[in-house]
Amino acid sequence: MSASHKVVILGGGFGGLQTAQALRRAPVDVTLVDRRNFHLFQPLLYQVATGGLSPANIASPLRAVLRDQANTRVLLGEATGFDLAGRRVLLADGVVPYDTLLVATGSRHHYFGHPDWEKDAPGLKTIEDATAIRRRILLAFERAERARDPEERSAWLTFVIVGGGPTGVELAGAVGELAHMTFRGNFRAIDPRSARILLLESVDRVLPTYPVPLPARAAASLARLGVTVRVGTLVTDVREDGVTFRQGDATQSVSARTILWAAGMTGSPLGRLIAEAAGARTDRAGRVLVEPDLTLAGHPEILVIGDLAALNGADGAPLPGVAQVAIQEGRYAAALIGARIAGRTLPPFRYRNLGNMATIGRAAAVADLGWMHLSGYPAWLVWLFIHLLWLVQFESRLLVLVQWTWNYLTRNRSARLITGGPGD
Amino acid sequence: MSASHKVVILGGGFGGLQTAQALRRAPVDVTLVDRRNFHLFQPLLYQVATGGLSPANIASPLRAVLRDQANTRVLLGEATGFDLAGRRVLLADGVVPYDTLLVATGSRHHYFGHPDWEKDAPGLKTIEDATAIRRRILLAFERAERARDPEERSAWLTFVIVGGGPTGVELAGAVGELAHMTFRGNFRAIDPRSARILLLESVDRVLPTYPVPLPARAAASLARLGVTVRVGTLVTDVREDGVTFRQGDATQSVSARTILWAAGMTGSPLGRLIAEAAGARTDRAGRVLVEPDLTLAGHPEILVIGDLAALNGADGAPLPGVAQVAIQEGRYAAALIGARIAGRTLPPFRYRNLGNMATIGRAAAVADLGWMHLSGYPAWLVWLFIHLLWLVQFESRLLVLVQWTWNYLTRNRSARLITGGPGD
Repeated sequence: MSASHKVVILGGGFGGLQTAQALRRAPVDVTLVDRRNFHLFQPLLYQVATGGLSPANIASPLRAVLRDQANTRVLLGEATGFDLAGRRVLLADGVVPYDTLLVATGSRHHYFGHPDWEKDAPGLKTIEDATAIRRRILLAFERAERARDPEERSAWLTFVIVGGGPTGVELAGAVGELAHMTFRGNFRAIDPRSARILLLESVDRVLPTYPVPLPARAAASLARLGVTVRVGTLVTDVREDGVTFRQGDATQSVSARTILWAAGMTGSPLGRLIAEAAGARTDRAGRVLVEPDLTLAGHPEILVIGDLAALNGADGAPLPGVAQVAIQEGRYAAALIGARIAGRTLPPFRYRNLGNMATIGRAAAVADLGWMHLSGYPAWLVWLFIHLLWLVQFESRLLVLVQWTWNYLTRNRSARLITGGPGD
Repeated sequence: MSASHKVVILGGGFGGLQTAQALRRAPVDVTLVDRRNFHLFQPLLYQVATGGLSPANIASPLRAVLRDQANTRVLLGEATGFDLAGRRVLLADGVVPYDTLLVATGSRHHYFGHPDWEKDAPGLKTIEDATAIRRRILLAFERAERARDPEERSAWLTFVIVGGGPTGVELAGAVGELAHMTFRGNFRAIDPRSARILLLESVDRVLPTYPVPLPARAAASLARLGVTVRVGTLVTDVREDGVTFRQGDATQSVSARTILWAAGMTGSPLGRLIAEAAGARTDRAGRVLVEPDLTLAGHPEILVIGDLAALNGADGAPLPGVAQVAIQEGRYAAALIGARIAGRTLPPFRYRNLGNMATIGRAAAVADLGWMHLSGYPAWLVWLFIHLLWLVQFESRLLVLVQWTWNYLTRNRSARLITGGPGD
């Protein structure tokens, strides 16, 4: 192998971008393929969906990030299939040859056999998802302001968030903050604080992967923002004007015009394609089962990482679909490629959990750092610090700090624009 | 008349918002109706279209701006007609009664009898226009990077801007800046500096309403950014893949995949409706002819202001469709309403031209302050100062300063995201 060893990376998310950056000094030619021209800081997408940040605040143009990396080119394109024998990725408008292929195309939300729910309960994964959800939330308050009928008004002021994981908790908290703080004095016919925000979770607590007592602390913080948490609750129907759920033996319907989905994830369609081509298996969530070194069995030249990869941690539990896992896998993948070229071997990938955290509104969060649990204001400060540390690695992310400081001081959210059409 | 005197304002642009704010202490009930939930700082829209600013940087939620103004409510709705006898505005979903009606719904771009050109040569008036144009410009460079055929590549790297007024000049300058500065080192197959940027103007100079020597200075600044100015040029055809124009007796076709329209404006459709209902006339550009006090003849209770109003200045020339005119008309309209309630009269509206300016790229501009002409860096500083002064009146506009400072220091444009679909 030589400097002409071709590494093709599909996906410019946390995993793919980290791999590309870690290959900066490797004797390889890197091609990063993405359908979008930017890397997205997904953990803050809920802030865009609730008008706290602008899309550009959490997105970095891939070309700008990789500008000075001479061995790397960015290719805006959509992979549609694989020719493993010919070692080529098929694009919608061309082919890209590879020596090593890394697939890191992530996940989409999943409706557990009810794809028809998506139009009434959109999920949050892309910039367009976020601005569409922002549109829905803001329009709901506008419709409530105009509504004459009390029942109609109440339905517009009812927000249901399905799924009590970090995304659901953060979304519910941010909607609570909108209603209780940001919108103060903004309306004449309604009191935005009368908004009803329901967070539905199927197991017995929110943030179920977090250690005790963080789920209870998170629930308490949510309650302070007017969010009603309903645990042990299974959604059985989603409609344009409401949702039906079962809690124990009781079934209940709630009229609500805004329903948001934060319950399930499934691997991107390319996961199934690469698995079929390589004879690999996928799990129930559509993620590709990988070897301990993140390659596919029988295909050491193909790696799958990030949300799209199914791998168990040292404790036997599946690694979660979070940025941290994708980043560490990306670093490992780059090291593996470098080691092979140098004729060395590497021990299997090992995930080091540096902690998990979720924010609830303006100045509350829960943080599980492994050796320490934090909640409330201290957790929020840690959350802020870690996220800013991450963000400032990319150009212009200082602006997020300025925007947040401003939002914090003024309790305002200035990016609350209703843009685009309902069909966008 | 009493505190229950109802003022209905259609449109939350410069004119409408200024009127509402100037009525803050008047004994009236103000209803501001807009289809959008934000006020847009249109003079900076070209910065959004070229990735320098985010939409939220130049848009302020109307409810936030008017939050503390107790006599005013904001109504998100679309006016569809008028019942002048009943003194009611008809909305798509209701009616709003008024005692005084102010129509300030502005203008849209106009294709001089060729509405079919719009899809291939979009104009710049709304946030959606700006993000769609941003998408086109950025995708053109991406397509060029992928193109194999030199002619195809050249067509993707050719940008035609039709119209050499302030918007066209600013757009052309910003595209030049993208190509020559921002994209430096971003591509591997193309040199973005090879982009060809054509600015077509029908009369004999750019910025024709500016005094000598500013048009020539602007043209020189544009040339430094790689913009070719073609004056005395009439566009005769616009297609998806190019444009045909006549210069003197010569007709020429240019292959170009990005064509932007900055040539004509026409009054919003509500202008025609109010004119028909009130028996007023409209001019060729669809603007409503108003009396010297901005009311309609025979209908003193109806005022039309801003881009939608046709009125001549003291020099006999029509007042231009710029923010400054709309703002001064808004202040006058509020004063007139207050005077009438107090039983007083006002002299006719008189426009005071405080100056005009246009920017060309990163540190150049032309400014006509009446008593002084500026160009280059000094003009740019004045432009920056005046625009920031304006912007900081609204909350969070400090961020624009931070973003600009950052862009200026790094020569970067961080909001260059390709979002939405081609149909958006």
